[in-house]
Amino acid sequence: MHYLHTMIRVSDPDATIAFFRLLGLEEVRRIENEAGRFTLIFLATAEDQKIGDRRAEVELTYNWPAEDGIPPETYGSGRNFGHLAYRVDNIYDSCQRLMDAGVTINRPPRDGNMAFVKTPDGISIELLQAGAALAPAEPWASMPNTGSW
Amino acid sequence: MHYLHTMIRVSDPDATIAFFRLLGLEEVRRIENEAGRFTLIFLATAEDQKIGDRRAEVELTYNWPAEDGIPPETYGSGRNFGHLAYRVDNIYDSCQRLMDAGVTINRPPRDGNMAFVKTPDGISIELLQAGAALAPAEPWASMPNTGSW
Repeated sequence: MHYLHTMIRVSDPDATIAFFRLLGLEEVRRIENEAGRFTLIFLATAEDQKIGDRRAEVELTYNWPAEDGIPPETYGSGRNFGHLAYRVDNIYDSCQRLMDAGVTINRPPRDGNMAFVKTPDGISIELLQAGAALAPAEPWASMPNTGSW
Repeated sequence: MHYLHTMIRVSDPDATIAFFRLLGLEEVRRIENEAGRFTLIFLATAEDQKIGDRRAEVELTYNWPAEDGIPPETYGSGRNFGHLAYRVDNIYDSCQRLMDAGVTINRPPRDGNMAFVKTPDGISIELLQAGAALAPAEPWASMPNTGSW
């Protein structure tokens, strides 16, 4: 038995792929289903891709807009789901890349160890520094929290 | 960069651990935080434990009841999160174990390939048959769907 993936629904696949690329995840395969009018996109980190088929991936499900003009479903969030967590090589570099691209750092890495951000559809992502925490550094050390995560 | 875990919040850790044990996941470590009044429990499949620290785990967060008698938070679910997916050796055996323990098979494996169930807090779990789909077999082949997943 093997953990294959975590699936999240996305309203804008390109925006979500761009978000995960800032973190270091890449698209590894894609399934377009014309009959079902949906696209499945699987993402993995470069490091995890080296593990081969024992890796766990993130699956994005994009339901295509209805042909009859009915507005697409709005995806709410719930508290039973918490977050996806990734170990990163340098948490300050990761957060800087995200911030430069306009992503809010909901919980900045004030401790040099942990940060939280959100995907465009509000899925919380936890970043954890590999190895020991980095020394506290600005602008992170004095950056307040924003919203929830 | 590496995918560490998916965190879900649980209202009853023992019930959730029992659910995941039926699937084949085991507790691999636990962190009790007295000051923060929460417990973190990490689960992994036996196969994934062999990968070592490159595996992805499920993290259960259990927030302890408030000392002042305030009722615990009720965890709602949202559509932005989809499911966790596991590859299983025999999808009929997995579903039988779950059903014998009283778990509803929301989407029975009629095709010998795919099933959906839910954790006690409503997190959808997808089961996918390893390798080729099994030959259709009762009671699964004629079992209707129940609820959503």
